[in-house]
Amino acid sequence: MTYSYVSHLYCPKCNNTYNVVEKNQLCSCGSPLLVSYNMEEMKKVFYPELLREREPNLWRYHEMLPVQSIENVVSMGEGMTPMVLMSSLGEDMDIPNLYMKDEGLIPTGSFKSRGAAVGVSKAKEVGVEELAMPTNGNAGAAWSLYSARARIKSTIVMPTDAPEITRKECVAAGANLYLVDGLIGDAGKIVAQAVKDYDLFDASTLKEPYRIEGKKTMGLEIAEQFGWELPDVILYPTGGGVGLIGIFKALQELKELGWINGEKMPRLVAVQSDGCAPIVKAWQEGKTNAEPWQDASTIAFGINVSKAIGDFLILDAIRQTDGCAISVSDEMLLDELRTISTKEGTFVCPEGAAAFVAARKLRESKWIKQDERVVVLNTGAGIKYPNTVEVDAPILQPKDRIVKDYVK
Amino acid sequence: MTYSYVSHLYCPKCNNTYNVVEKNQLCSCGSPLLVSYNMEEMKKVFYPELLREREPNLWRYHEMLPVQSIENVVSMGEGMTPMVLMSSLGEDMDIPNLYMKDEGLIPTGSFKSRGAAVGVSKAKEVGVEELAMPTNGNAGAAWSLYSARARIKSTIVMPTDAPEITRKECVAAGANLYLVDGLIGDAGKIVAQAVKDYDLFDASTLKEPYRIEGKKTMGLEIAEQFGWELPDVILYPTGGGVGLIGIFKALQELKELGWINGEKMPRLVAVQSDGCAPIVKAWQEGKTNAEPWQDASTIAFGINVSKAIGDFLILDAIRQTDGCAISVSDEMLLDELRTISTKEGTFVCPEGAAAFVAARKLRESKWIKQDERVVVLNTGAGIKYPNTVEVDAPILQPKDRIVKDYVK
Repeated sequence: MTYSYVSHLYCPKCNNTYNVVEKNQLCSCGSPLLVSYNMEEMKKVFYPELLREREPNLWRYHEMLPVQSIENVVSMGEGMTPMVLMSSLGEDMDIPNLYMKDEGLIPTGSFKSRGAAVGVSKAKEVGVEELAMPTNGNAGAAWSLYSARARIKSTIVMPTDAPEITRKECVAAGANLYLVDGLIGDAGKIVAQAVKDYDLFDASTLKEPYRIEGKKTMGLEIAEQFGWELPDVILYPTGGGVGLIGIFKALQELKELGWINGEKMPRLVAVQSDGCAPIVKAWQEGKTNAEPWQDASTIAFGINVSKAIGDFLILDAIRQTDGCAISVSDEMLLDELRTISTKEGTFVCPEGAAAFVAARKLRESKWIKQDERVVVLNTGAGIKYPNTVEVDAPILQPKDRIVKDYVK
Repeated sequence: MTYSYVSHLYCPKCNNTYNVVEKNQLCSCGSPLLVSYNMEEMKKVFYPELLREREPNLWRYHEMLPVQSIENVVSMGEGMTPMVLMSSLGEDMDIPNLYMKDEGLIPTGSFKSRGAAVGVSKAKEVGVEELAMPTNGNAGAAWSLYSARARIKSTIVMPTDAPEITRKECVAAGANLYLVDGLIGDAGKIVAQAVKDYDLFDASTLKEPYRIEGKKTMGLEIAEQFGWELPDVILYPTGGGVGLIGIFKALQELKELGWINGEKMPRLVAVQSDGCAPIVKAWQEGKTNAEPWQDASTIAFGINVSKAIGDFLILDAIRQTDGCAISVSDEMLLDELRTISTKEGTFVCPEGAAAFVAARKLRESKWIKQDERVVVLNTGAGIKYPNTVEVDAPILQPKDRIVKDYVK
């Protein structure tokens, strides 16, 4: 039985092709490479009913993933995260069919584990022994931990402002961790130099072709969880944008397989922060590429990316699905984060909260209709971001008694 | 269709019975109450093949859970956590079939969510509007967040030494949080007083009968994940011990249903810390109840429980399954925690690490045989315990270059 129907890599800019057995990075033209599958062969043997017999993790879609031998799969059980109906919040927003796909319930506590699981597995398959990457925190945590499991050495460079827990995860993994007094772009330059100096595999966003295949599984799961009847809108907090590109790729492939109705694609929404909104600006100006954002700053650190290497793919996905790009303020997302936890009991990450604010705003502007089914990606666990909550609780002594105002 | 085959509550000490429609706490004799089901009726309609059609969360076992109406289910998608083969660690321990059930991949990041999901759902069903509980952190986080989702008010009292993130989760949920300069026993006394003073529902461990049913689902999932062929040994970090009692109850019920071979029950192991080992002491001394442990102290804070109200049930479960109780040192568990993350890429909680140390020790003493299938419960996500990892990483400036010793 064929485990994967992967065929080759291709360049979406110059159409050059590459094989999937050697270590490949960017195309010689400088563009990211995408993975192609032999869909005609896959169609003959792969159908939705097969999935019912499989474990609830992302490897259930192995025919559509690039790892060719099951022996190379590096897994900690990632995927099939819950699709949670948010009734109270939805009522508050006037979106009765509001859902959260909760990517906090995954190894390392963020959606980055999807890209890491598939990316590291394929790196192992093509013989990578040592990799390096810049990160805003969560990707470094995920890639260093999956690399540890795969016996691949890792060098991680992250801004000093990245969530503190993520540097601890890198250390726990035994990675070579460096902090940089700057932004992820600065970390990227340091990694690029180290890659040259020490002949490392460059695992930077979209500089290796396979993490997008891992992120793609979010789209596959959304489709499966809705019984292959797609929702109307999907909102995604966008930094490097690989998740959005991946979801779009998933939907296109499902259409090609004939599993979904291709006439009614969900509208994809790229959500950014007012303090770092290069994609929003490019979209508003009708451009195909984004300009680097100056003095980028937001509490939603995961989307603090001034320049995304896949900007043209993000903008294309939004346009092709009649989606949009929208930014929100840090103040609003912090308010929303608390509204979500008190109304729904779900403690989301700042990036996820930003996407919920976007849903609220788009409903207010009527871009989202009342009867539409709306999915928000919460890209990580709130517990990785303790600084979003201030605690001011009374301290009692053992003989004390709770005496007053205990009910708020 | 009958959603639940729950029948009544019974006292394992005096055999008194209670109904499942009113608010019940302890038996009038002071013992915890257990939930009974109409197994004969359940058998007629509930069989393993049904599960394949159901979503991967703990409500797939709703016939065996106490919530009678699906409308009362308060869920964030909890359950069906991964069963991860730990090959490298297993090789290191000479236990080739070593598995981790990873309870970090669940809402609120700890196995406490199982008890909270079922306990809060049933509380909602019987009309609870306000509850209170003492906690070592994670249970308070879980119960306050699930209560928020259920529109139930909560009052949580936890030691000041409890993991800091858990107090933030309580605040995020909008709970009334109090810290106590003492141990969980002191928090328990304050809660008991508040329950009297303000007529609250007491959600303390085993003082309400339903959380054990939620914890029971760990046992159901283990059995299902092994294809109803049970593993040989299950190790469980034991504080209040509800998980162990629940797993034992699950196995008994599955035996009654005829889904498993009742002749070959897994040996259950209660793992404690050298600094707080009342169950281990009682087991060694052949007692049926445990004495309160003096000056309890361990870094594995979740198992820092001097006196468990269900001690007699824990000791009974260990004896009936030919299991054992064992304690480990804080030093060893911290070493093991790092061994686990570097070898397997899994970042576990201190309590989970303690249970892995116990597996190692029991293999060394030959209590665990080489060919046995061993399951360790990792009861929470490592990211909730940042203090287990020290970071000492170089800080670079944007123009810097990684120059030396980047490979460890």
